[in-house]
Amino acid sequence: MFIRKATKKDFPQMLPIFREVIEGGDTYDFEETASDQDAFDYWFGKGVTSFVMEDDPSDGQNACADSEPRRKKICDGADREPRGKILGFYKIIQNHRGRGSHVANASFMVSRETRGNGIGRKMGEDCIRVAREMGFRAIQFNFVISTNEPAMHLWKSLGFQELCRLPGAFNHKKLGFVDAVIFYLELK
Amino acid sequence: MFIRKATKKDFPQMLPIFREVIEGGDTYDFEETASDQDAFDYWFGKGVTSFVMEDDPSDGQNACADSEPRRKKICDGADREPRGKILGFYKIIQNHRGRGSHVANASFMVSRETRGNGIGRKMGEDCIRVAREMGFRAIQFNFVISTNEPAMHLWKSLGFQELCRLPGAFNHKKLGFVDAVIFYLELK
Repeated sequence: MFIRKATKKDFPQMLPIFREVIEGGDTYDFEETASDQDAFDYWFGKGVTSFVMEDDPSDGQNACADSEPRRKKICDGADREPRGKILGFYKIIQNHRGRGSHVANASFMVSRETRGNGIGRKMGEDCIRVAREMGFRAIQFNFVISTNEPAMHLWKSLGFQELCRLPGAFNHKKLGFVDAVIFYLELK
Repeated sequence: MFIRKATKKDFPQMLPIFREVIEGGDTYDFEETASDQDAFDYWFGKGVTSFVMEDDPSDGQNACADSEPRRKKICDGADREPRGKILGFYKIIQNHRGRGSHVANASFMVSRETRGNGIGRKMGEDCIRVAREMGFRAIQFNFVISTNEPAMHLWKSLGFQELCRLPGAFNHKKLGFVDAVIFYLELK
């Protein structure tokens, strides 16, 4: 398993995972009416940098592993075909433009069959490292759903601070209006 | 003075106000490099509903005053030329898509020469009324700059709750990294 920069060639494998995540209606603000284009724009739109966790039998030895030179050399803008199965992905964007652009925002999706295997944690750790490398001073999550216990637990355990709750800000598919939570991690 | 829905014909009067606001570098995340198109998209882009405060000698008697039927009849989609001077404007958008679309977000700008005359307060009160009419359950401000004392005071006095501070999230033109504040007002 290894994490590398996502390319548009990964999208066919990412789309079904996106669909199963938003179908739950319990973690993302997307509704099931979201189009494939909406999904594409979310992961590959302007200003978006996305990464995939790939389950490649070669463990990415011919692609890009953890070391930054290999990431830079091979993965940035790579158009290689995915060789293995994509298990999850995440993205980093600026949380605000201009005078707020030193704070990152990130989003994560893990395939249903892979959940509970620490993929989210590995991607979270990678995200913190990459955001720091990209020069961000902090990471802010704007909309973690309070009933999403794995996410709530994960971000706290990675050092994020729960700054506040937004009362009833998320319309949960099964539970109705529940709180969303803002998490923040200072990197400097 | 009265508030009515903004139209594209108002933009030539709005742009210099936008310019003088962002030139301060103390309230908005826009940098001075923002283009006219950026400004236009911000106030008239997809999903944006904007309103202007106009200083019309007739007090809008031939346009739209406070009563909702007149607002609906004359101001929605109106393409009338502005008759008076535009003193300020605000916009309402959904703070999140889909499952978060029941919470509004709003932004305000007031011309420099008009500040301190309660225009911001009048627009804030109007915004709360309009957001409620539009069916929103709450209003969330994501990025009030903590050093912007008039704004901090105004939102508290209108019943908004200061939910949390985002440490160093705003790069103030004069002060460097300062906190931004999230405000929230439940409408139901």
